[in-house]
Amino acid sequence: MVYEVPAIVADKVSPRAKQLLQKVSDFVENECIPADSIVDAQLPTDPSKRFLNTYPSIIDELKAKAKAQGLWNLFLSQIHYKEGVALTNLEYGLMAELLGKSFVASEAMNCSAPDTGNMEVLAKYGNEAQKKEWLVPLLNGEIRSAFVMTERMKASADAKNIDLDIRQEGNEYVLNGSKWWSSGAGDPRCKLYLVMGKTDSNNPNPYKQQSVVIVPAGTPGVTVLRSLSVYGYDDAPHGHCELIFKNCRIPITNMVLGPGRGFEIIQGRLGPGRIHHCMRSIGAAEMGLAYMIARVNDPARKTFGKLLSEHGTILEWIAKSRIEIDAGRLLVLQAAEKIDRSDAKGAMNMISEAKIYVPSMACTVLDRAVQAHGAGGVSQDFPIAKMWAHQRTLRIADGPDEVHLNQLGRTENKRAEEITATLKMQKAKVEELMRQYKIQDKSKL
Amino acid sequence: MVYEVPAIVADKVSPRAKQLLQKVSDFVENECIPADSIVDAQLPTDPSKRFLNTYPSIIDELKAKAKAQGLWNLFLSQIHYKEGVALTNLEYGLMAELLGKSFVASEAMNCSAPDTGNMEVLAKYGNEAQKKEWLVPLLNGEIRSAFVMTERMKASADAKNIDLDIRQEGNEYVLNGSKWWSSGAGDPRCKLYLVMGKTDSNNPNPYKQQSVVIVPAGTPGVTVLRSLSVYGYDDAPHGHCELIFKNCRIPITNMVLGPGRGFEIIQGRLGPGRIHHCMRSIGAAEMGLAYMIARVNDPARKTFGKLLSEHGTILEWIAKSRIEIDAGRLLVLQAAEKIDRSDAKGAMNMISEAKIYVPSMACTVLDRAVQAHGAGGVSQDFPIAKMWAHQRTLRIADGPDEVHLNQLGRTENKRAEEITATLKMQKAKVEELMRQYKIQDKSKL
Amino acid sequence: MVYEVPAIVADKVSPRAKQLLQKVSDFVENECIPADSIVDAQLPTDPSKRFLNTYPSIIDELKAKAKAQGLWNLFLSQIHYKEGVALTNLEYGLMAELLGKSFVASEAMNCSAPDTGNMEVLAKYGNEAQKKEWLVPLLNGEIRSAFVMTERMKASADAKNIDLDIRQEGNEYVLNGSKWWSSGAGDPRCKLYLVMGKTDSNNPNPYKQQSVVIVPAGTPGVTVLRSLSVYGYDDAPHGHCELIFKNCRIPITNMVLGPGRGFEIIQGRLGPGRIHHCMRSIGAAEMGLAYMIARVNDPARKTFGKLLSEHGTILEWIAKSRIEIDAGRLLVLQAAEKIDRSDAKGAMNMISEAKIYVPSMACTVLDRAVQAHGAGGVSQDFPIAKMWAHQRTLRIADGPDEVHLNQLGRTENKRAEEITATLKMQKAKVEELMRQYKIQDKSKL
Amino acid sequence: MVYEVPAIVADKVSPRAKQLLQKVSDFVENECIPADSIVDAQLPTDPSKRFLNTYPSIIDELKAKAKAQGLWNLFLSQIHYKEGVALTNLEYGLMAELLGKSFVASEAMNCSAPDTGNMEVLAKYGNEAQKKEWLVPLLNGEIRSAFVMTERMKASADAKNIDLDIRQEGNEYVLNGSKWWSSGAGDPRCKLYLVMGKTDSNNPNPYKQQSVVIVPAGTPGVTVLRSLSVYGYDDAPHGHCELIFKNCRIPITNMVLGPGRGFEIIQGRLGPGRIHHCMRSIGAAEMGLAYMIARVNDPARKTFGKLLSEHGTILEWIAKSRIEIDAGRLLVLQAAEKIDRSDAKGAMNMISEAKIYVPSMACTVLDRAVQAHGAGGVSQDFPIAKMWAHQRTLRIADGPDEVHLNQLGRTENKRAEEITATLKMQKAKVEELMRQYKIQDKSKL
Repeated sequence: MVYEVPAIVADKVSPRAKQLLQKVSDFVENECIPADSIVDAQLPTDPSKRFLNTYPSIIDELKAKAKAQGLWNLFLSQIHYKEGVALTNLEYGLMAELLGKSFVASEAMNCSAPDTGNMEVLAKYGNEAQKKEWLVPLLNGEIRSAFVMTERMKASADAKNIDLDIRQEGNEYVLNGSKWWSSGAGDPRCKLYLVMGKTDSNNPNPYKQQSVVIVPAGTPGVTVLRSLSVYGYDDAPHGHCELIFKNCRIPITNMVLGPGRGFEIIQGRLGPGRIHHCMRSIGAAEMGLAYMIARVNDPARKTFGKLLSEHGTILEWIAKSRIEIDAGRLLVLQAAEKIDRSDAKGAMNMISEAKIYVPSMACTVLDRAVQAHGAGGVSQDFPIAKMWAHQRTLRIADGPDEVHLNQLGRTENKRAEEITATLKMQKAKVEELMRQYKIQDKSKL
Repeated sequence: MVYEVPAIVADKVSPRAKQLLQKVSDFVENECIPADSIVDAQLPTDPSKRFLNTYPSIIDELKAKAKAQGLWNLFLSQIHYKEGVALTNLEYGLMAELLGKSFVASEAMNCSAPDTGNMEVLAKYGNEAQKKEWLVPLLNGEIRSAFVMTERMKASADAKNIDLDIRQEGNEYVLNGSKWWSSGAGDPRCKLYLVMGKTDSNNPNPYKQQSVVIVPAGTPGVTVLRSLSVYGYDDAPHGHCELIFKNCRIPITNMVLGPGRGFEIIQGRLGPGRIHHCMRSIGAAEMGLAYMIARVNDPARKTFGKLLSEHGTILEWIAKSRIEIDAGRLLVLQAAEKIDRSDAKGAMNMISEAKIYVPSMACTVLDRAVQAHGAGGVSQDFPIAKMWAHQRTLRIADGPDEVHLNQLGRTENKRAEEITATLKMQKAKVEELMRQYKIQDKSKL
Repeated sequence: MVYEVPAIVADKVSPRAKQLLQKVSDFVENECIPADSIVDAQLPTDPSKRFLNTYPSIIDELKAKAKAQGLWNLFLSQIHYKEGVALTNLEYGLMAELLGKSFVASEAMNCSAPDTGNMEVLAKYGNEAQKKEWLVPLLNGEIRSAFVMTERMKASADAKNIDLDIRQEGNEYVLNGSKWWSSGAGDPRCKLYLVMGKTDSNNPNPYKQQSVVIVPAGTPGVTVLRSLSVYGYDDAPHGHCELIFKNCRIPITNMVLGPGRGFEIIQGRLGPGRIHHCMRSIGAAEMGLAYMIARVNDPARKTFGKLLSEHGTILEWIAKSRIEIDAGRLLVLQAAEKIDRSDAKGAMNMISEAKIYVPSMACTVLDRAVQAHGAGGVSQDFPIAKMWAHQRTLRIADGPDEVHLNQLGRTENKRAEEITATLKMQKAKVEELMRQYKIQDKSKL
Repeated sequence: MVYEVPAIVADKVSPRAKQLLQKVSDFVENECIPADSIVDAQLPTDPSKRFLNTYPSIIDELKAKAKAQGLWNLFLSQIHYKEGVALTNLEYGLMAELLGKSFVASEAMNCSAPDTGNMEVLAKYGNEAQKKEWLVPLLNGEIRSAFVMTERMKASADAKNIDLDIRQEGNEYVLNGSKWWSSGAGDPRCKLYLVMGKTDSNNPNPYKQQSVVIVPAGTPGVTVLRSLSVYGYDDAPHGHCELIFKNCRIPITNMVLGPGRGFEIIQGRLGPGRIHHCMRSIGAAEMGLAYMIARVNDPARKTFGKLLSEHGTILEWIAKSRIEIDAGRLLVLQAAEKIDRSDAKGAMNMISEAKIYVPSMACTVLDRAVQAHGAGGVSQDFPIAKMWAHQRTLRIADGPDEVHLNQLGRTENKRAEEITATLKMQKAKVEELMRQYKIQDKSKL
């Protein structure tokens, strides 16, 4: 398929990026999507062996192919990181959309969460020793990593809600507590956890109590308890794991950035990463629409003598999906462009808009695709139910929709003062005009 | 919990049924819901052993308890079946709501699909030999059964789309073809399949080409190929299976009702069964709401210093869920009452209304519950994601929403003639009144 | 048309009420709906003459006909009022649905707001002198009335927000302040206002500060300033008026029930009245659906060679409308039945459910009807745009949807304690069963 | 207010256009919005005098001011018309958004429908004589015009449905038939009608039967019968008129482009015009949001002790409105950019996406604003109900949403072949990989 840049940003994409986009598109369509079926099949079926055990060998072959084609670490933009590639957020965003069409594509090009965010953290906040030990092998795709933040007994919607205790004892930190939804911690290749905990729970500033430390996988005192499922999917081998820390000791040199700076780190981590997530969701939605179109034009699926695509309702599903996907993509591209021109903070509102709109939209489109496939749609015979489940979690991950809506609402609501002043000015003008034109105000005696 | 009959039908429920309802409620809350966690844990984790192998032993204990309390086969109404119990469809509907709160409750009381529908078919259309061989052990809960109709390569939304071939050879029928979504066929206790196939594909009447035959499980030539998943759930041990029939031979005495009468059978099977499904969905939705209420009042889940239930948005979710569940229940009860007073055919539209509205509503309510639970909501730690997945399939099973909407729309649209006549009569009256009151019609010169 | 009682309440409607329902149906279809067009035409077109001036003469003829047939004051139930008729709230509710199909029908049968609520107030709380002076002529349909409560500069969603001052001076009350949305005050036949104001603004109990007094129209010091429009409609001659009270004096005998009891009065006024409003909304929605069905089957409206009703999308509109109307009706009937069996307070939640669901649903159905009519739909050539505008105000009147959702949410949320206890009990049972069946809890070490 | 170009197109707007945008913004905020209240007040209240009689004098003053500032005919792009101004469609689109905030702004700058479309028709298809007689005074704002196409008794969703007969007799055309929704024909300044009729109803090509002719207002045989209302608004003095043509004769030189070329004309007329409409809708939606924000922060509107903006539900309304407006604007800008880079035909799908999404979105946002204003929201005291009514008609005008959805669905569905081929290719690759990795296909025996 010939890759085409969306018209409205066509002039913002460099010729080199356009070439890369075509290469990414070909790689995803020809290599990654077919590989998705193999990845599943290469995993052990016995759940007790699906984690911390093995991983599908086809992934290594894909990684080698991707590296050979220069399709590697494209997420890391030189705009923000000296280790990065010469791509804007907008350009990489377009690539991320393509990655989102396949389950394995992001990993194949070393662009998969949570490694991407973790590499960003290490590149931005890590010291040289930390970079050498952890960032380099991550950038080489030799190891994987997890970000360990959410806790089972706390409302994670409020990121201050952290219980895991990090206590200093001499040259060591001692960690006690538990975490869950540590995505990626189930993978045997996962070698480090970035762990958010409390180093200073009495600090009067609730945003200065947290720190992020590096815990090497296998450190005594840390246990991978179990894996959480997502609508029945276990997402092996990565998994969404529950971890127990019991007197787990690490050297104090494993502190990232400095004690009490955990919030700073997670905030720096979120902006562009959210854009990448959103663009992958766009790709997933496009896959949903593509599967739907293929299905409703399949002659074997005729009902009452008609192709499904000849039913008005189905055509509306297709048209609405087209509109909603395009609207979503534009919202994300707008935010990406803003990040490129200012920074993630300046683009905060636009990132929120995309974060709220896109996963929900992707769920809607994929759900229509499920419905169009009938019983097949909910099953393993098509990737759409699983894609839906993944998109559904994105309405919760990194803060539920409701928290983002509330925050965006608050920001927008700050316009009240200016608007009220304008309306007051206009009202005064109306009164002046009424005098001028000798018109009586009917709402007054 | 004290069971309370919905006010609007309070006078339609007999004192005996009220007593039974309280017993069912107690049994579900105290025995079945806790057992749901055990059922999962008693199954082998290795997928290759989850079907045709074993089943959770706790089920037999629950069945014994239920039988001892007289909570057995309550679905089979004496109104329709001489083998049945003295309950109306409305009364049993109210019980089915309670069953819907637990995954195992229906089976524990021998009221679970597809056995219920199959028992109805055998009671209504089976001959004495068939009843003796199959209906009796089913009513005793000694065996289980599957209804084998849907085909993978055909659009099942149109029930005429059947390829499986049933050819008579002497005193035998020979079956060739494949089927999928044969729910229950994975259970080692499943001893018979009711199979829909084509005996007369050249019959000019497309509703006379199909027949239903009984195939004993284990008959040579029939293979359980695999199980389909629902999102990521396998619903072991019952399963949703793909079956292959290759020269599978059965005696011609295994024909139900008679050749060419397959459509008649599936239509007789659907009415009350749909009501039961819908009422179970109401129960599932009530569970979603109950879990949501518990969660948003959990002090451990405070965000930004407030209980989740103190946020306006959450209160709206609760209120809307309350309204939607109540509206759904009333639609089902209305249909049940209509079936009791006339028959399933007379209640067809009302059944359609319930069938369309309720599963979709249950998905909405359960999805809100998932969102209120955050990451926990999508996981195995709460039953709501799995309940959602089950409800989601009900928007496809027994015909997708769109087919029912279309059919209901057509029926309602038949009012056109009468409405048009009324409007014409009223228009004539207007013209008469205009003359009488000497008013000029401004839309005419 | 033959009137048919909804099946689920068929046994709750007396033979006499069934006869009345048929008579009401005939009267509405044959007399009132045609008269709607005349009512408009008999009003002056000049806005300055549409209020406080005249009213359509056809109304008096309709009233005479209705009275002659015994179709008079049917809203006033003997269950609550000794002056009332022998109908339950459920029975009258069914009649109110029929009234809702026509703009003029309610008034023609002396069952129109705000007179109905005002008559209820006078019957319930008025003393004998007040009843004689005001209730009797209202019951006779000789005069009309307004309920004067909402204020322009206050958020009426919170009923305590009242500024109008009622100060006692000797044997008189002196009223100062302004009111708006006083529906009916524009009618020349409107002879009394029931005015809510503050008699005791320093009372520490914010629900004891308000009183309701009777102000005869024409009392010096009260001025009808102007009429408010509803999406461009002025609803002449009744109108939604802004009133100015400037040292308006009334005798203290015009106090209703007693000083500080205003809240008590408005709360007693709301229950059954809301049910009536809702059932009229059901009737309006049915009209929307009927007009839609007529339109989409009109051969003159073919597009692309097909009747509109042959398009799948339109059939879905019809089916969804059927379901939503039926669900709405059942919610109202459920509340009406509850009022009949207990009282308005016991039915509070059910009334809220109906109040929230029904007007919004009616807007949805009528909006589909508008869309199906194309440009004609928004114009004066069909009653549907005007019906929509009226239904739209019902999402605001008597408290906006959001206030009712919040309140209903709070009530439902009170189940938290019981639910939490049940879940805790079930969790304990699970742990017991796990011990019994020797199952390890995977979520624990 | 400082005007800010949306970030994603900032580099596509010339410095001159940016200056113009600031001037347009100031003119709209400071002059036009206050004038909106005067326009209403300067119209006669008597409906019989609101059309073909007079118009608000303030409009002429606004026009003089706009002209003096160079804010004139900005809609006519040099890209398409030699008479035009040096603005791209994207640049003018941004201006149109500002115009959409006020009812009178478009006319004040000679940019109001239907004149804009009519000027485009005359500029593109008119001959020199027609241009001189009609285009020049229209461009000067000396006269106004109407486009006369829709018919009352026909389904206009299908543009081929035309009955008005245009018969040639010697050097004249004779017109017979009736038309409605001729917007602008009520204005006393309206001097010409562009009339679509059938000149060749037997032509086998249904798209060649229609022609467009110029009928000067006041030509004998044409009567303005009445004005249609939009909900309760009459949109005086322009109006939406019903016209009767009875042996109305015009010279054959009044044919535009040529007989049988009517379809060509209306298709050329629609593209950029739809973009302008959509951008005005964006402006209307922004006004709705601005009014909502002002209202919910008004201290006088506190309920239950809180500003409305402190309620979570309201903040969600604000946030959702922000997202939906931004998504809508991006969809329109994308189409405008596409038109600028290719042509209206190449941008057809994008125009459809905007046409479907935007008016519906504007209705949603304005409806929330109405709800936030309570009873005031539906009245004449705020412009939002009227704005809503106008936006509501845009879901019908120029083809109802459903026709556009159907068409867009069909276009998107044409991807079926390519998608099916890709899926087939991928399936083949999967089979190849399965052989390579020695994996058995579980869905086969």
